[in-house]
Amino acid sequence: MNQPAPFNYKILISYDGTAYSGWQIQPQGKTIQEEIEKALQLLAKEPVRVIGSGRTDAGVHAYGQVAHFRLSQELPTQLIFKSLNGLLAKDIRIHQVERAPDDFHAIYSAQGKIYHYNLHLEPVVPPFYRLYRHHIPHPIDLDLLKEATSLFVGTHDFTSFANSANQGAASKNAVRTISRIDLVPIEGGVRLEFEGNGFLYKMVRNSVGTLLDVAQYKRPIGDIPQIFAAKDRRQASRAAAARGLFLMHVHYPNSFD
Amino acid sequence: MNQPAPFNYKILISYDGTAYSGWQIQPQGKTIQEEIEKALQLLAKEPVRVIGSGRTDAGVHAYGQVAHFRLSQELPTQLIFKSLNGLLAKDIRIHQVERAPDDFHAIYSAQGKIYHYNLHLEPVVPPFYRLYRHHIPHPIDLDLLKEATSLFVGTHDFTSFANSANQGAASKNAVRTISRIDLVPIEGGVRLEFEGNGFLYKMVRNSVGTLLDVAQYKRPIGDIPQIFAAKDRRQASRAAAARGLFLMHVHYPNSFD
Repeated sequence: MNQPAPFNYKILISYDGTAYSGWQIQPQGKTIQEEIEKALQLLAKEPVRVIGSGRTDAGVHAYGQVAHFRLSQELPTQLIFKSLNGLLAKDIRIHQVERAPDDFHAIYSAQGKIYHYNLHLEPVVPPFYRLYRHHIPHPIDLDLLKEATSLFVGTHDFTSFANSANQGAASKNAVRTISRIDLVPIEGGVRLEFEGNGFLYKMVRNSVGTLLDVAQYKRPIGDIPQIFAAKDRRQASRAAAARGLFLMHVHYPNSFD
Repeated sequence: MNQPAPFNYKILISYDGTAYSGWQIQPQGKTIQEEIEKALQLLAKEPVRVIGSGRTDAGVHAYGQVAHFRLSQELPTQLIFKSLNGLLAKDIRIHQVERAPDDFHAIYSAQGKIYHYNLHLEPVVPPFYRLYRHHIPHPIDLDLLKEATSLFVGTHDFTSFANSANQGAASKNAVRTISRIDLVPIEGGVRLEFEGNGFLYKMVRNSVGTLLDVAQYKRPIGDIPQIFAAKDRRQASRAAAARGLFLMHVHYPNSFD
């Protein structure tokens, strides 16, 4: 029977998702996971599987993605840190490399996450934001947006806001708790900060899509409870653009810090 | 004798300088001025010269560049605004188009400018900042930096901080007044904000280069008065990287607002 490789590592990663087909290895297209695995394999001279705390879609960014991987030999963390940053393109950066307890797992040990979704609400987007904000070229009803976000806070079955491709699987375990959604003013727009104990695939983008429809009077706020109750992805609005979304932070128990 | 075309326009522009050989038309390489002139010529069906408030170098960004141009026919400002933003690449944006008084000139009417220079001072640069900050991968002496900036504030002959290629011309009229240089903390670094009545070509980057050498103990702060006194570009340090510099704002008299 195969034993897992004995040396467990935890890494903290940021990436600009613009040029990638998302985190997870795909049959086609460059992915973040694949780029990091290739770099680690060059360094460690063995096949390495990198497990991220969660998948991010094509075009979604991360400021604080966490991943773990196991090696059959022990390598110094500074060597891994410097080599990975040397081998990887500048749009993927490794901020920390640590030896992790044997039972640390980037997905199963996670207790919660913070996502930010950036909106630009002026007619023209300054070029520095063009890849990092969703553009709505006019003001929206921020009071109504705030009120609508409050309907997402708390414990709900998010089946209607999960990716439709995963509907069958997701519906079995789609109850999540969002502890806060804050609206934070940013230059020329607003940022939605989501914090929760877990997020289904595409849940933030699907929720933001619905919130934005409400805040632009495209559908009434009263739709939101009905969408939750329907447990049907088709009831929610289209996903908001990937470029506005950042995975900011993954919480782990203190024992893993 | 040729009369200037009668209709004068003022535009407010932002650009990501990464892909360009600077503002001013060059024999080789794409420039911001050229891209805007080409778009205007398509629209106005006549040759158009676009005069920017000042040249920015290759790789330098602008958040609030101002330019003027003259047309022989009057075109609605909304038409110009929408057409330019449609015709231009997303890394050049037009934020405002206004009819300007006949005597408005983007260079000669300018009363002052604000530049920002962004420094990232941590070991690793998150990818979102990689094109917009100069990276020094370690802390620097911010108290000493602050003290050194105070030696640049006020009225000085900036010959030693002007582009060496312009040394002859610049030395005739190199007295400028810097009214403030503020150090503003930003996530992972610090921003230097320069405000003054005018800036010589490369003056901010050359000044920052010297300031950073002082703040990293590469040369003593006492060099700064000597560099000013020498009126010799070779006495100052190398220019700091273009990517950290943003032209933020150009001041004009209220009559032109």
